[in-house]
Amino acid sequence: MSLTPKWVQNLKPSGPQGHELLTAERTNSFVKDDEIATFMFSELNLKRDAAILQILKADPAFDKRNNYYAGRIDRIRTALARGKRLQQLSAKHGWSEDEYQVAYDLIGEATPYGLHAGMFTKTLREQCTPEQQAKFLKAAIDYEIIGCYAQTELGHGSNVKGIETTATWVAQSQTFEIHSPYLTASKWWIGSLGKAANHAVVMAQLLIEGKSYGPHLFLVKIRDLSSHQPLPQVYVGDIGPKVGFNTMDNGFLLFDHLQIPHENMLARFANVDPLSGKYYQSPNPSLVYGTMTWVRSNIVLRSGRALARGVTIAVRYCAVRRQFVDRDNAAPDTETQVLDYTMVQHRLFPLLAATFALHFTGKKMIQMYQNHQAAGGKALIIERPTGPEEAPSIVYDANRALAQLHALSCALKALTSTIAGEGLETCRRACGGHGYSAFAGIGAWAADYLPTLTWEGDNYMLTQQVSRYLLKAARQVRKNQHRSENGDAVQLLADYTSHKSTATQSLDFELDDAGLIQAFRHRVGHQTFDLLRRRDQEGASWNSLLVDFWKLSTAYAQYSLVRNFKEALQDATQTGLAQGNIEVLHNLFRLYALSVLSQDFAGFLKSGAYTPNKLVQIEAEMLKLLLSIRPHAVKLVDAWKLSDWQLDSSLGRSDGKVYEDLFHRASVLNPLNLVTFDSNPRSPVLFREWHSQPSKL
Amino acid sequence: MSLTPKWVQNLKPSGPQGHELLTAERTNSFVKDDEIATFMFSELNLKRDAAILQILKADPAFDKRNNYYAGRIDRIRTALARGKRLQQLSAKHGWSEDEYQVAYDLIGEATPYGLHAGMFTKTLREQCTPEQQAKFLKAAIDYEIIGCYAQTELGHGSNVKGIETTATWVAQSQTFEIHSPYLTASKWWIGSLGKAANHAVVMAQLLIEGKSYGPHLFLVKIRDLSSHQPLPQVYVGDIGPKVGFNTMDNGFLLFDHLQIPHENMLARFANVDPLSGKYYQSPNPSLVYGTMTWVRSNIVLRSGRALARGVTIAVRYCAVRRQFVDRDNAAPDTETQVLDYTMVQHRLFPLLAATFALHFTGKKMIQMYQNHQAAGGKALIIERPTGPEEAPSIVYDANRALAQLHALSCALKALTSTIAGEGLETCRRACGGHGYSAFAGIGAWAADYLPTLTWEGDNYMLTQQVSRYLLKAARQVRKNQHRSENGDAVQLLADYTSHKSTATQSLDFELDDAGLIQAFRHRVGHQTFDLLRRRDQEGASWNSLLVDFWKLSTAYAQYSLVRNFKEALQDATQTGLAQGNIEVLHNLFRLYALSVLSQDFAGFLKSGAYTPNKLVQIEAEMLKLLLSIRPHAVKLVDAWKLSDWQLDSSLGRSDGKVYEDLFHRASVLNPLNLVTFDSNPRSPVLFREWHSQPSKL
Repeated sequence: MSLTPKWVQNLKPSGPQGHELLTAERTNSFVKDDEIATFMFSELNLKRDAAILQILKADPAFDKRNNYYAGRIDRIRTALARGKRLQQLSAKHGWSEDEYQVAYDLIGEATPYGLHAGMFTKTLREQCTPEQQAKFLKAAIDYEIIGCYAQTELGHGSNVKGIETTATWVAQSQTFEIHSPYLTASKWWIGSLGKAANHAVVMAQLLIEGKSYGPHLFLVKIRDLSSHQPLPQVYVGDIGPKVGFNTMDNGFLLFDHLQIPHENMLARFANVDPLSGKYYQSPNPSLVYGTMTWVRSNIVLRSGRALARGVTIAVRYCAVRRQFVDRDNAAPDTETQVLDYTMVQHRLFPLLAATFALHFTGKKMIQMYQNHQAAGGKALIIERPTGPEEAPSIVYDANRALAQLHALSCALKALTSTIAGEGLETCRRACGGHGYSAFAGIGAWAADYLPTLTWEGDNYMLTQQVSRYLLKAARQVRKNQHRSENGDAVQLLADYTSHKSTATQSLDFELDDAGLIQAFRHRVGHQTFDLLRRRDQEGASWNSLLVDFWKLSTAYAQYSLVRNFKEALQDATQTGLAQGNIEVLHNLFRLYALSVLSQDFAGFLKSGAYTPNKLVQIEAEMLKLLLSIRPHAVKLVDAWKLSDWQLDSSLGRSDGKVYEDLFHRASVLNPLNLVTFDSNPRSPVLFREWHSQPSKL
Repeated sequence: MSLTPKWVQNLKPSGPQGHELLTAERTNSFVKDDEIATFMFSELNLKRDAAILQILKADPAFDKRNNYYAGRIDRIRTALARGKRLQQLSAKHGWSEDEYQVAYDLIGEATPYGLHAGMFTKTLREQCTPEQQAKFLKAAIDYEIIGCYAQTELGHGSNVKGIETTATWVAQSQTFEIHSPYLTASKWWIGSLGKAANHAVVMAQLLIEGKSYGPHLFLVKIRDLSSHQPLPQVYVGDIGPKVGFNTMDNGFLLFDHLQIPHENMLARFANVDPLSGKYYQSPNPSLVYGTMTWVRSNIVLRSGRALARGVTIAVRYCAVRRQFVDRDNAAPDTETQVLDYTMVQHRLFPLLAATFALHFTGKKMIQMYQNHQAAGGKALIIERPTGPEEAPSIVYDANRALAQLHALSCALKALTSTIAGEGLETCRRACGGHGYSAFAGIGAWAADYLPTLTWEGDNYMLTQQVSRYLLKAARQVRKNQHRSENGDAVQLLADYTSHKSTATQSLDFELDDAGLIQAFRHRVGHQTFDLLRRRDQEGASWNSLLVDFWKLSTAYAQYSLVRNFKEALQDATQTGLAQGNIEVLHNLFRLYALSVLSQDFAGFLKSGAYTPNKLVQIEAEMLKLLLSIRPHAVKLVDAWKLSDWQLDSSLGRSDGKVYEDLFHRASVLNPLNLVTFDSNPRSPVLFREWHSQPSKL
């Protein structure tokens, strides 16, 4: 394998070449992908991204060639080196947080510094007193200490109240004793902990004189700063391989009565008086989870791009791949591009449409959050992510609109990350056999993305919070206690009741844009009041309603996606996008709405939004839309401006050289081909092999 | 990490221990899992499996402890050694093919011998003349030669007709010249080729004097038998890492005008006269794909067990895991078992029901095939797996019932492997955060399973063949040309037409067992004749109907699953199973049918089987079934008799010691914890690390 023979080097793929096919696709579409890209991302951001890409590509630390072959230890080693280099580049170029994030995304893998730069620093910024900030936050920003955020435990993930690690106030020495009383108290899944961190922000139950004051945060040194060995009374390590995300050193952490100074309790909102041992809280005690709405809004925004990676790869490959001859077509010897088959279009184009839907809604969420911040200043939503209904979950503070934002971010986080996670697998399968190759570039990416469906609120758990919000809003509407500034959901429910009281029979909305949005809106109203009746009047148990809560939350998010997509179309018109672009985006909007509608047609029927015979019309319209989108599919994925370097995919290459790239990676780059095994089962030993030298790459 | 401190060794999980919880689950259920297991598998088979398990567990070659940590090269090395050992054990114990397969399944990973023992030997047996068998087949059975089956190419998977490798008859030397004219002609994805094989059965276009005779099979030596180096004119290697299945050496293979002897064309059904160069065929020329029905029936049978691995793990773990307090429950400090939440039941129990549905239908398929073989002898179905309608696909031979069997195996392969593949991911997610750990035991297994959805006929492609069959049958019914011996599908369609002509309005079947089965049966009839009208009367293009063909094939398979499940219940009653067992299995049957019904309620509506207001009733009934199945869930997965050794899962341990096992694998076994990295980004070098010694395991 060390030398590729001349005759192999000379081989070319048969038939029309991949680059010819993609060129034809691009020539035959009137879509202006650059214009759409600018509309989505802004010219400034696109230029910024391109500049950062050039810096990364030129740096040997980010050479991706061995990524798909390396084992776990090699990957962690390389990822840590990349993290260091990224930090150096960031300092050198004076990157902002946004720019650092762009670079992180382009590299495409987590580094063990990820949680240091993220949650650790963020928590210190929010939870430290000014004195603590001067000491701890500064050291973190300067990377003098490397940290992580240690909340989740082996036995408790979602339920923060159930955390078992204790921090006991020791009056005599004026210290806290951090301890793990059970195996299940072990911190677990903590990113950047397994290998990188020498400090951890630890969430522990505060105990003073035998009384528990609930979970609080403590900064704990866990490893020696120079030897990097764990401190005595600390047991720490990496939790082992995962489905994906294997460049991250998710870790475990146990304490044996470790004493830490009084000042290491993060004391901005709560503290223990060192002399009296008295516990006291600041006026705003429940800020602990204040940033979750922001975090979830970002997951929504990023879900579009996450899915677009898979859709870009699948659409391009299906335009290059030809298989079978469509029997109704003329030329009997010309195989059909796979993208021409309606079965493939039916699988891919609703996802193509979804990438735009997710992006526009993500932008909207970020904008709403920023508007709120600008207007409301410090007014923050309080959420304790506990499951059942009565737990303190949403405290309406000065600005009630944030309650709506919180619920929306929960509903959308749950739905959009599910769409992206499941959509990536659909894209992978649409690539046929080659989709299973690592070089497709979808499998590993999808595996890395999957934890998004579980972290920052499990996608099923979150839907309870959304439903709780909607039920409360519905109760207000029922009592005529709602106020218009309470946000769109309340308005939606109020509209539903007044609408409902005048309607006499099934509504059977139109399938035009306005009718579609009305139907989605109507369904949310119907589901909410149906659940309200079952809960409040029929006394159904909370547990018996969980499945319907999940359906309600999903419907609420779907309504939001459809409505925001439509609003983005109006923006596009006002921005003066080319008519062709608007037309195609409009088709994508309609396909997205209709595909959701057809998938849960039973739900829409139940709400009375449609009558059964509408389904035939919906399916016919969807088929038409697939055909109208087909000529523009490649240009539409081009509009996402995902670089080949970022995609790292044989199948998704923008130049269509799919087969050449697959072959190169399999033959020349593949280290397994440097080993020859003795495969004779009758040979006396089980292991016998010979190694050859790598060829020049 | 080399020594676990005493204080860590002494830690226990908090609260009720996992083994206590699982013991309570088992005590509180009246299900007799051994009886169900015997009903499903027979006592003889269970004993056989247990005996083989003991042999494998005792053999150090099959020590699984490093599986989750090892990189690709290590895994291939170990898998090949295991393949050798398996072969030795098989010889020593005189295992039958079935017994060998049981061992293979228990080991739980593919070995590079897999395709030698499977497709290679099978093809030689079927395609060789007696003289060739004496020479080639004997050598293969004795492992004197190691082989693979090289059909798929870089550019062609499903479409066998499009294969580009050529075998040109050279009259002068009486040889065939095997050649790869294009890069896309490279054989690709060929199991056992990358590292293990020294021979390949190669499918190539036969060319004689410039004329093509289509794809034929040739036995080609590709590596030297002692040095194991590739022959000149052969370029062969491993195709690189994949999403899963990484213990298999899927390979590529290119030829540069390699000449092989005349006798190496597999000549049982076609040959070239060595003197005249004339091509001739045997009377039964199209046997090439004869075994596909058998292969697919086996995929159907195995899909139940494949899914059961995930369901077993998820159900057990959700019985051990407790999170949050159900608000309507009394004890405020006792967290609820996750399995008690209806949202979790809604995700897992339909899959639990599906494992049984798939198993019973798989057994039925195997039985039908064997009945046919016993009755019809050599009468085999002919299928060329080409896509479009007119391509020769099903040739009705002496026994027309096989056409039905073929269509059914296609429909069921597509649906059951999709259910298993997607269901495993649902199980993984139902395990929450820990489901993402490799130690959950689902991720890697699911990844290994996924190619089943693509190979032996892509799950979307196959549905065209099913629909083609049903459309043909419907045309016969329309013309009154059908005969009862044409099988159940024809009868179904005939019943539908006579039924339809008498019905005056929507049928609104009952939700009892008989009504459910009628509704499923009715829907198939409706969809078939609807498509017949669109194709034959309205002239819809084949391509425009692909999505509906897929839906039809799915509906046909669903009907079959539901009906066979019901028949299995009748068998269970006749066999005299305990009343409790029959009751629980009956609930599973109903849950399975109702969950399919509710998921495609729109489709059932469209067929007129139900009216919209039935949905509320269906959902209420499903909730009741979830609650009635809940107390027996652990016992029902126990009935699958999947050993801990096979599952290799921390979460799915039969003794419930989930947290102890996760911790042990993460801390003691995890090789990453023997490395300490310098994580200071300001240190002068990017790579710096220290290694420690492994602790005694």
